[in-house]
Amino acid sequence: MSIKVVVLGGSGYVGGELLRILVNHPDVTITAAGSVHYAGEYVHRVHPNLKGVLDLKFSGEDPLKLGAGADVIFCALPHGSSLKVVPKLMDMGVRIVDMSADFRLTNAESYKTWYGYEHPYPDLLKKFVYGLPELHREQIRGSRYIAAPGCMAAAAILALAPIAKGMDIEGPIVVDAKIGSSGAGGKPSLATHFSERFGVVRPYKPVGHRHTGEIEQEIKFVSGKDYGVAMSAHAVNMVRGILSTSHVFTKTDAAAVWKALRSFYISEPFIRFIRDKAGLYRYPDPKIVIGSNFADIGFEVDPHLNRLVMLSAIDNLIKGAAGSAVQSMNLSLGLNEKAGLGMAALHPV
Amino acid sequence: MSIKVVVLGGSGYVGGELLRILVNHPDVTITAAGSVHYAGEYVHRVHPNLKGVLDLKFSGEDPLKLGAGADVIFCALPHGSSLKVVPKLMDMGVRIVDMSADFRLTNAESYKTWYGYEHPYPDLLKKFVYGLPELHREQIRGSRYIAAPGCMAAAAILALAPIAKGMDIEGPIVVDAKIGSSGAGGKPSLATHFSERFGVVRPYKPVGHRHTGEIEQEIKFVSGKDYGVAMSAHAVNMVRGILSTSHVFTKTDAAAVWKALRSFYISEPFIRFIRDKAGLYRYPDPKIVIGSNFADIGFEVDPHLNRLVMLSAIDNLIKGAAGSAVQSMNLSLGLNEKAGLGMAALHPV
Amino acid sequence: MSIKVVVLGGSGYVGGELLRILVNHPDVTITAAGSVHYAGEYVHRVHPNLKGVLDLKFSGEDPLKLGAGADVIFCALPHGSSLKVVPKLMDMGVRIVDMSADFRLTNAESYKTWYGYEHPYPDLLKKFVYGLPELHREQIRGSRYIAAPGCMAAAAILALAPIAKGMDIEGPIVVDAKIGSSGAGGKPSLATHFSERFGVVRPYKPVGHRHTGEIEQEIKFVSGKDYGVAMSAHAVNMVRGILSTSHVFTKTDAAAVWKALRSFYISEPFIRFIRDKAGLYRYPDPKIVIGSNFADIGFEVDPHLNRLVMLSAIDNLIKGAAGSAVQSMNLSLGLNEKAGLGMAALHPV
Amino acid sequence: MSIKVVVLGGSGYVGGELLRILVNHPDVTITAAGSVHYAGEYVHRVHPNLKGVLDLKFSGEDPLKLGAGADVIFCALPHGSSLKVVPKLMDMGVRIVDMSADFRLTNAESYKTWYGYEHPYPDLLKKFVYGLPELHREQIRGSRYIAAPGCMAAAAILALAPIAKGMDIEGPIVVDAKIGSSGAGGKPSLATHFSERFGVVRPYKPVGHRHTGEIEQEIKFVSGKDYGVAMSAHAVNMVRGILSTSHVFTKTDAAAVWKALRSFYISEPFIRFIRDKAGLYRYPDPKIVIGSNFADIGFEVDPHLNRLVMLSAIDNLIKGAAGSAVQSMNLSLGLNEKAGLGMAALHPV
Repeated sequence: MSIKVVVLGGSGYVGGELLRILVNHPDVTITAAGSVHYAGEYVHRVHPNLKGVLDLKFSGEDPLKLGAGADVIFCALPHGSSLKVVPKLMDMGVRIVDMSADFRLTNAESYKTWYGYEHPYPDLLKKFVYGLPELHREQIRGSRYIAAPGCMAAAAILALAPIAKGMDIEGPIVVDAKIGSSGAGGKPSLATHFSERFGVVRPYKPVGHRHTGEIEQEIKFVSGKDYGVAMSAHAVNMVRGILSTSHVFTKTDAAAVWKALRSFYISEPFIRFIRDKAGLYRYPDPKIVIGSNFADIGFEVDPHLNRLVMLSAIDNLIKGAAGSAVQSMNLSLGLNEKAGLGMAALHPV
Repeated sequence: MSIKVVVLGGSGYVGGELLRILVNHPDVTITAAGSVHYAGEYVHRVHPNLKGVLDLKFSGEDPLKLGAGADVIFCALPHGSSLKVVPKLMDMGVRIVDMSADFRLTNAESYKTWYGYEHPYPDLLKKFVYGLPELHREQIRGSRYIAAPGCMAAAAILALAPIAKGMDIEGPIVVDAKIGSSGAGGKPSLATHFSERFGVVRPYKPVGHRHTGEIEQEIKFVSGKDYGVAMSAHAVNMVRGILSTSHVFTKTDAAAVWKALRSFYISEPFIRFIRDKAGLYRYPDPKIVIGSNFADIGFEVDPHLNRLVMLSAIDNLIKGAAGSAVQSMNLSLGLNEKAGLGMAALHPV
Repeated sequence: MSIKVVVLGGSGYVGGELLRILVNHPDVTITAAGSVHYAGEYVHRVHPNLKGVLDLKFSGEDPLKLGAGADVIFCALPHGSSLKVVPKLMDMGVRIVDMSADFRLTNAESYKTWYGYEHPYPDLLKKFVYGLPELHREQIRGSRYIAAPGCMAAAAILALAPIAKGMDIEGPIVVDAKIGSSGAGGKPSLATHFSERFGVVRPYKPVGHRHTGEIEQEIKFVSGKDYGVAMSAHAVNMVRGILSTSHVFTKTDAAAVWKALRSFYISEPFIRFIRDKAGLYRYPDPKIVIGSNFADIGFEVDPHLNRLVMLSAIDNLIKGAAGSAVQSMNLSLGLNEKAGLGMAALHPV
Repeated sequence: MSIKVVVLGGSGYVGGELLRILVNHPDVTITAAGSVHYAGEYVHRVHPNLKGVLDLKFSGEDPLKLGAGADVIFCALPHGSSLKVVPKLMDMGVRIVDMSADFRLTNAESYKTWYGYEHPYPDLLKKFVYGLPELHREQIRGSRYIAAPGCMAAAAILALAPIAKGMDIEGPIVVDAKIGSSGAGGKPSLATHFSERFGVVRPYKPVGHRHTGEIEQEIKFVSGKDYGVAMSAHAVNMVRGILSTSHVFTKTDAAAVWKALRSFYISEPFIRFIRDKAGLYRYPDPKIVIGSNFADIGFEVDPHLNRLVMLSAIDNLIKGAAGSAVQSMNLSLGLNEKAGLGMAALHPV
């Protein structure tokens, strides 16, 4: 019997990616895609790639009504909007995968620090599990409420968790991230106007990136330590993908890093280690993961200054959002963890 | 029981795309990927997207040996090389899908005109069917030998066939094509050097494009008429995709064009009509098909000069090569025509 | 003594390009850059490339006031707005270079056909000369009122004028144009949203492009014949540049085309012929003109169908707008025609 | 009287950029452009942007012969080749601006560390001055031998020098650099093949980048301290430009950083400070300097971890190579420092 799934906020880029993945998921039926703005319009008006693939119109119905008959709700509403809808959905008993930041941080205080507001439901935060299966698989299996990770956070955490767990790091960890335009969503502005955005390397958030809180939280979760994360985010000339470069100061060598990675990631279905002496793709590169749920992880040891450079590449809309979300749903429902996520990346593209 | 498939020339871009599609094909097992140059190396060294997806090394074995136990051979060798291998493979009785131009033209004379050589096996040409299911479905079903279409040709033919069949065209048909870099293959040169290739609109073949012969052949096949095709090909700033703009002079109107398209393409699984009064994607655009097997077709009627502009967009490596090839294999083997080809395009990307 | 110049509509892309060229013009002083929207802000807030180059704030003053002390006014207002301002400026006796379409067509009827409105000042149209020095140098020298050409029109006209003048063309001329995003101006919309615009080959105006009227007008000007122009315009993945591909049906050969080009363009300072048997840039390509005032022209003869393919490449904001405008100003004022326009294109870029 | 200038290695990207700048330099005549490989061919075959701008053929003559009559020689030969030519040119008494790394490091030991070879002329190193006018103006004025800086080094040094001089920095300085393809030169390879290079964020040198030595040297020059530099270099999806992000750990605030910048850079002609609360270009971005000799510098203070993020953007071929070289030549010859360098960047592009 097919699982009934609703996607709220179906007209955004994350919503569209959820629909694209779910329409080919063997165990799932999409029963509704919510969008107040596009209510009544065909999904493919907004997501033209789904023409001939998903025959559905956006629904402008109240989220609670949409959720009534659903087994799982993906809530891809903007940050802040989830806060208003999710608590009510929880009362209905439906499984929830929330794509916003509203339930990612376990500590209500952190919302003041990173998002500048008082979280209205500190108690609910404990009911959510952070939807990164590589760190929280067992918790996700036992949970009905999942907060999908931030895309920048997912990229950094997957590279840093094994290191933070296994090694002693000196001083702050520098995370220098490069991301494509889709991370900024689908709403036009001067900053995303093609003539202004093409060819940039724009340091759009050199300090104060809100995903810092998530990264510090998860690094503490695996290591027990309060490592500081010094993050800078740059917009680069592409639509999809993140490369996260983490500069970690620690005395180590390649063998030790390999050991840390391998012991942390045992038979993970969506983690690949990329570190080759030959060939073109010696390190992770977003180009090679676009369209797939893989997180590629690599590294290099710098003997000059006891530095370890950790590199990770993901598709921000898949492993950084919709893919991790579906993977978490699969775990929560006891399905094959890889179901619906078998697509390989395109190359070249 | 799974069908055993071999891909010769597996290290090229078309070979890689065949492997990517076939690895997720439900009825198929890839038994070998041939490459003399990369013999013994992992496939993912060359096609890094397949790491963790296809666990296989390239084989440098003789094609005939590789073909011995196979049910189907995809021959993705360079133009000219197929000529040497395919006739021998035919003797072995294996099903063949040839990706080169060597068996696409039914008339041996045309090889002199468009490729500048005397075809050595004019008799074999008749045994091959042109692998565009939308025009040759029944022949493909009954055939063991398929010549996959040229990418530029496929794009133009799919837009023009319904028109050529249904309408009277005056004078030559102008085909103005725009293509990404992957159509030029994987071999580096000054022309493909990133610093020189980035940002170009390079008219690399303003006259004399060899796919012209295919287009004229197929238009004659559907219409019975000897329409002349005046083609120009431009390289543009992207890796995948073709937009083909055909300028056709004929007295017509939108209703008549719709009728021609709809009567020609009845429930085709991979043809989409793109013509919208609203929204962003009012006409075909390669951006929207990349990664899928769709051919998007649209048009506009120009009352100014009795012109009909036919537009078509495909992913050159999929509908223009590997996708049409697998679709043809499915038909030839009596499988579900869509098997392995269900992937939706990415958006945005 | 320096010539006092005012740029109205200085905050648009054409306005910015005028400022960039004029600030380095040896004979000119920019006395004001008008912008109601950005009044009081530094020019470099909008045109960040001019920081440290032009120390000026936008003025929100009435155009007539700005024009009072000026020798020359460049009117880079949107189409339709020029109509309201230019007649009043003409009364003041100031020299005017209008960048809009409002005074380009000599025949008032054509405004109905191509722009859908009744031109309110048919008499003024005769006072303007079409600002393409290669066709109208002597008229420009004798005129105080110049209508700078449309960018797509300039590209097509420069390629077609010598052919139309010297040869007999059969049937309509097909103009298939490819343009960067800057041609669409600086105002954000969904169509120009980076994630949606990146990587496109978007047939945004397959029929009915308004520059068609200009092209037909100028071709008639040089040839005396009413050739029909069948134009389609495509947006491609770059910011600047136009490649115009014109498909002309005529019996000719390379020698005759060379002769037509050379006799039409005798020692033109900004026309280059690009047609090389070797090397990478065998035909015009916008990549090679970006940042310069050159129009590159090339061709190929197609013996298959008596077709001549004319190719031209320009920087849409320079030769297609600000550069031709300054060149025309230089002529009108009796200055060195090349003054301020000596910048070479960048390569590679 | 015009200064006679020769460019050795004129067919490379740096050589081409030198020619482009020098051809418009008011005080200079280019007497020869050397290239063994392209000897006898027009310069515009290789640098097509110079067609109609520079009427010159490459000379295959011996560098010493070319240098005989020259006042200044720009030596844009590959690293290692300069070593063989420069000492002989020095004997001739000609002024030299060397573009390679062969004479940039003042300490011969450093060549072993960063370039892996024993420098054969340790004595000559002292005769060269590091060609970054912002740090060495007076030395350059008094010198005949200039070593132009490395592009990545120039970007980082210009951002870090004022900070290193004025503040106490804890631990290593992390330099995370993003660069376009032109930095890799004009020679095709698989790594620069368009289909493989397009859309990458490729960490091509996560550790061990050779410009590290230069940066540490110059930071010591201004600060007297042995700060360690931990550098990682990434190739991004563009042709020109560098963004250098430096993560510096120090207790400071914006006012102190402004003071450090302003006192270090007093009326520098090619340094711009970019830090705006509003508008689109709030921080440096290579998009805004391409084509100009500007170095844009900005910063942000991160109170979270006592971090100062220093940002700088340059055109790698201009301020990072040919522009700084011409600026240095101007100083060495007593010319106007800005001569030939007045070009503004293009926007948008």
